Amino acid sequence: MASNGPIAILAGSGQLPIQLLKHLEQTGRDYRVLAFRGFAAPELRRRAHASADLLDLKTIMRVLDGWQPKAVALVGAVRRPGFSALLGAYSLLRNRQEVKEVIARGDDQVLRGAVMLLEERGHKVVGAHELAPGLVAPQDLRGALVPGEDDRQAIAVGLDLLNSLSAFDIGQAAIVAREHVLAIEGPEGTDRMLRRVMRLRQSWFGLRRRKEGGVLIKAAKRGQDLRVDMPTIGPKTLVEAAQAGLSGIAIGMGSTFVLEQEETLRTADRLGLFLVSVELPWMEADHG
Amino acid sequence: MASNGPIAILAGSGQLPIQLLKHLEQTGRDYRVLAFRGFAAPELRRRAHASADLLDLKTIMRVLDGWQPKAVALVGAVRRPGFSALLGAYSLLRNRQEVKEVIARGDDQVLRGAVMLLEERGHKVVGAHELAPGLVAPQDLRGALVPGEDDRQAIAVGLDLLNSLSAFDIGQAAIVAREHVLAIEGPEGTDRMLRRVMRLRQSWFGLRRRKEGGVLIKAAKRGQDLRVDMPTIGPKTLVEAAQAGLSGIAIGMGSTFVLEQEETLRTADRLGLFLVSVELPWMEADHG
Repeated sequence: MASNGPIAILAGSGQLPIQLLKHLEQTGRDYRVLAFRGFAAPELRRRAHASADLLDLKTIMRVLDGWQPKAVALVGAVRRPGFSALLGAYSLLRNRQEVKEVIARGDDQVLRGAVMLLEERGHKVVGAHELAPGLVAPQDLRGALVPGEDDRQAIAVGLDLLNSLSAFDIGQAAIVAREHVLAIEGPEGTDRMLRRVMRLRQSWFGLRRRKEGGVLIKAAKRGQDLRVDMPTIGPKTLVEAAQAGLSGIAIGMGSTFVLEQEETLRTADRLGLFLVSVELPWMEADHG
Repeated sequence: MASNGPIAILAGSGQLPIQLLKHLEQTGRDYRVLAFRGFAAPELRRRAHASADLLDLKTIMRVLDGWQPKAVALVGAVRRPGFSALLGAYSLLRNRQEVKEVIARGDDQVLRGAVMLLEERGHKVVGAHELAPGLVAPQDLRGALVPGEDDRQAIAVGLDLLNSLSAFDIGQAAIVAREHVLAIEGPEGTDRMLRRVMRLRQSWFGLRRRKEGGVLIKAAKRGQDLRVDMPTIGPKTLVEAAQAGLSGIAIGMGSTFVLEQEETLRTADRLGLFLVSVELPWMEADHG
């Protein structure tokens, strides 16, 4: 590892890795990208310097040894690997049952394991939020609309709920209407949770698309390693929240990525949703 | 209300009302059934003495006044009303927005409101578990299989999780594999939660149907009014748990209905799943 080496990006799915590369280019940073097969978006794969199966640790470590990076970032989603990605990994590992157990054990533990492994090899692991602080939800994030009284109540209940769930290996988001919890995110992810609430409401209220209210609350867990799997929203999240009939989204201040911040706020305004960043009571220690 | 009047059953969907009627007949009890339109199963509707829309309180109260029941039981599920049921109710009520808000407010609060309303009218509200204790999970409920070490860990995590969620208006069930929470039940119900986990695992492991492990933990909430919405399982729950790749089901002892207990246990054995009743730490006060 050379202190003047490039930044190595191990890239999974989603827009975050692409946004990060743009930021690194704008700031003139030297970087190398290793794209995870079956996860990385086509645009990212075209810009990648190497690719590997998610579970092909031998190739990953060999590539990193070659790059001698000054820091390594794990960026983008790698949960819910496609079956093809898993099969690729299986072909390289002796104990298939073991691979399946790692995958099934929980996102946190898989990612924590990856960080430990990289650090043991002498790599410095950094978060995308450290490389590109501009991607993180600022304190004054605010669209044209503000939460009403019902929404503020829902946000308080949602934060309380996520705090209670912090100890468990479970999602970082919930949907609450006033005091009624409509959904808690599991490993399926925010998009599928939003669609679940959309279907639920269709069965309650019929097929009409209208704003029934409710808030998506998305926040990092207490004790969460923000270098991996930091919560992320973008314009798509707003579109899906609108389809689920929600009135807005509240995200954890300083600990959530907002992709394409201007476009995200424009989408919120256009769809009549509020978007606010809120202080997470359990993250206070991090401010000091 | 006459002390020698019949037992009035206000019946929603599912098998529980039908099982309850069978029990009341076997024990020679006098009863009357009011079936909720859009919820009650065909078999129940054929045996009902009256029917009404769920939200048509005027008709419901008039029927009850006529029966002079010595006790009233709210039995079966009434959440997620079909759109037709809602429309029927809308036609009778002036403020449609109000109806929608009641429906959207949360199961607990709707049911608690119904109990209060009945009690205000001078009715004694009893639970199906008081009328037919034989339908409730006994302490020694046990199939041929017993939970393994992973499963016992999952049960402990699941109970801990449900305990943490007790304060919130949310489901009474979760699916846990070892320490990994795969799903928390929202208003969508246990069956849809099980299908969610099935789909999740298909995306992880491909389309093969095999036992990946994990436990459905289903239990009454702390402070839950067991007279309404007591958790219920039956043979169908076992079939769906098997399809989701689970290794078994754990339910709250003394506070969960087991429909067709013998058939439920036979189904568990046939599908290779365990089924156990567990003590709920937060229900201890009820034992004394």
